[in-house]
Amino acid sequence: MAQPRGRLYILSAPSGAGKTSLVAALLQQLSQLEVSVSHTTRAPRPGEQDGVNYHFTNRDAFQKLVDQGAFFEWAEVFGNCYGTSRLTVEARLAAGVDVILEIDWQGAQQVRKQMPEAISVFILPPSQEALRQRLTARGQDSVEIIEGRMQQAISEMSHYPEYDYLVINDDFAQALTELQAIFTANRLRLDRQMQHQAALLANLVPNAS
Amino acid sequence: MAQPRGRLYILSAPSGAGKTSLVAALLQQLSQLEVSVSHTTRAPRPGEQDGVNYHFTNRDAFQKLVDQGAFFEWAEVFGNCYGTSRLTVEARLAAGVDVILEIDWQGAQQVRKQMPEAISVFILPPSQEALRQRLTARGQDSVEIIEGRMQQAISEMSHYPEYDYLVINDDFAQALTELQAIFTANRLRLDRQMQHQAALLANLVPNAS
Repeated sequence: MAQPRGRLYILSAPSGAGKTSLVAALLQQLSQLEVSVSHTTRAPRPGEQDGVNYHFTNRDAFQKLVDQGAFFEWAEVFGNCYGTSRLTVEARLAAGVDVILEIDWQGAQQVRKQMPEAISVFILPPSQEALRQRLTARGQDSVEIIEGRMQQAISEMSHYPEYDYLVINDDFAQALTELQAIFTANRLRLDRQMQHQAALLANLVPNAS
Repeated sequence: MAQPRGRLYILSAPSGAGKTSLVAALLQQLSQLEVSVSHTTRAPRPGEQDGVNYHFTNRDAFQKLVDQGAFFEWAEVFGNCYGTSRLTVEARLAAGVDVILEIDWQGAQQVRKQMPEAISVFILPPSQEALRQRLTARGQDSVEIIEGRMQQAISEMSHYPEYDYLVINDDFAQALTELQAIFTANRLRLDRQMQHQAALLANLVPNAS
């Protein structure tokens, strides 16, 4: 019997929607679930560990991976490259682990093209007012900077119709329950259970096909 | 904005798998969820109420409904007819309620033909041993009767590969959590959320399509 294969999940959200806290809590709740570690050409910041926060690499090595088609998706942001290694993700899926990619709508489009069975979830704030409050509470930034972030968030959110599931993060506990339900339900699907519960099913119905 | 439409769920299980208790608990947990009330030609038993336990009807009226194609599925068991009215179910779905049909694999096949988008869940015991124990604990029946029920259960269970989801009822609380996750996750799907959260989404992204 082959090892049951994990599923690939895409999680997107505008800055301020609470994705990071939700994912951290989700990882506490569910086993066999990991967040994919990206490759990047930017230098490690104090406290960041190679292989934990990012796979740190140089520009030449990164470009070589790009040329080899090793990335599910990659992008250059402020002069630094970030990418999701297809090989790393495939290895974890093959080990039966569900893998989360925390990427934006552009990365999501690239991944869907290569793995249409990926399950995508968009996390949304309950209102523009709540989002503005969360973005404002982060520091003492000017109105202009907050508004710039709001416009970027609204632009990101405009892509919600491309996703399989929408989770509204109004009440944190409810949003966590809902996010968890998506992962749990997909683990209960027939194909997954026929792999995961193969021995149990063979005991129950010895003559099933 | 049209009323968000509910989803139709098919729940099947062999006798002894704990389906009735799970559904009762599920109805306590989730709102906008109902079990479809079947039509039957059999006489009410003491305590049974028309419209609650069954829609009680006579043979002629039942046959008329059959002739009109009013039933999603129907069957004759020990001389009595049982059927699921398509009209009743459609009215509840149109009211935004998720409707559960508790039917066997044959009824499930009939319903899927008419409503392929129905979501079907098969509830299974953890082992033949556990099932035999549950069937035995029901009374002081002979070994032959117990074995007859076992063979019927195994025959019913052999149809699990026709279902979308499998839930194993080993630990009741876990099985309930899993069953609930299936309903919750399907309510979070894009099409459902775009109906249910229409006002919220319009506030977040005024210019989305």
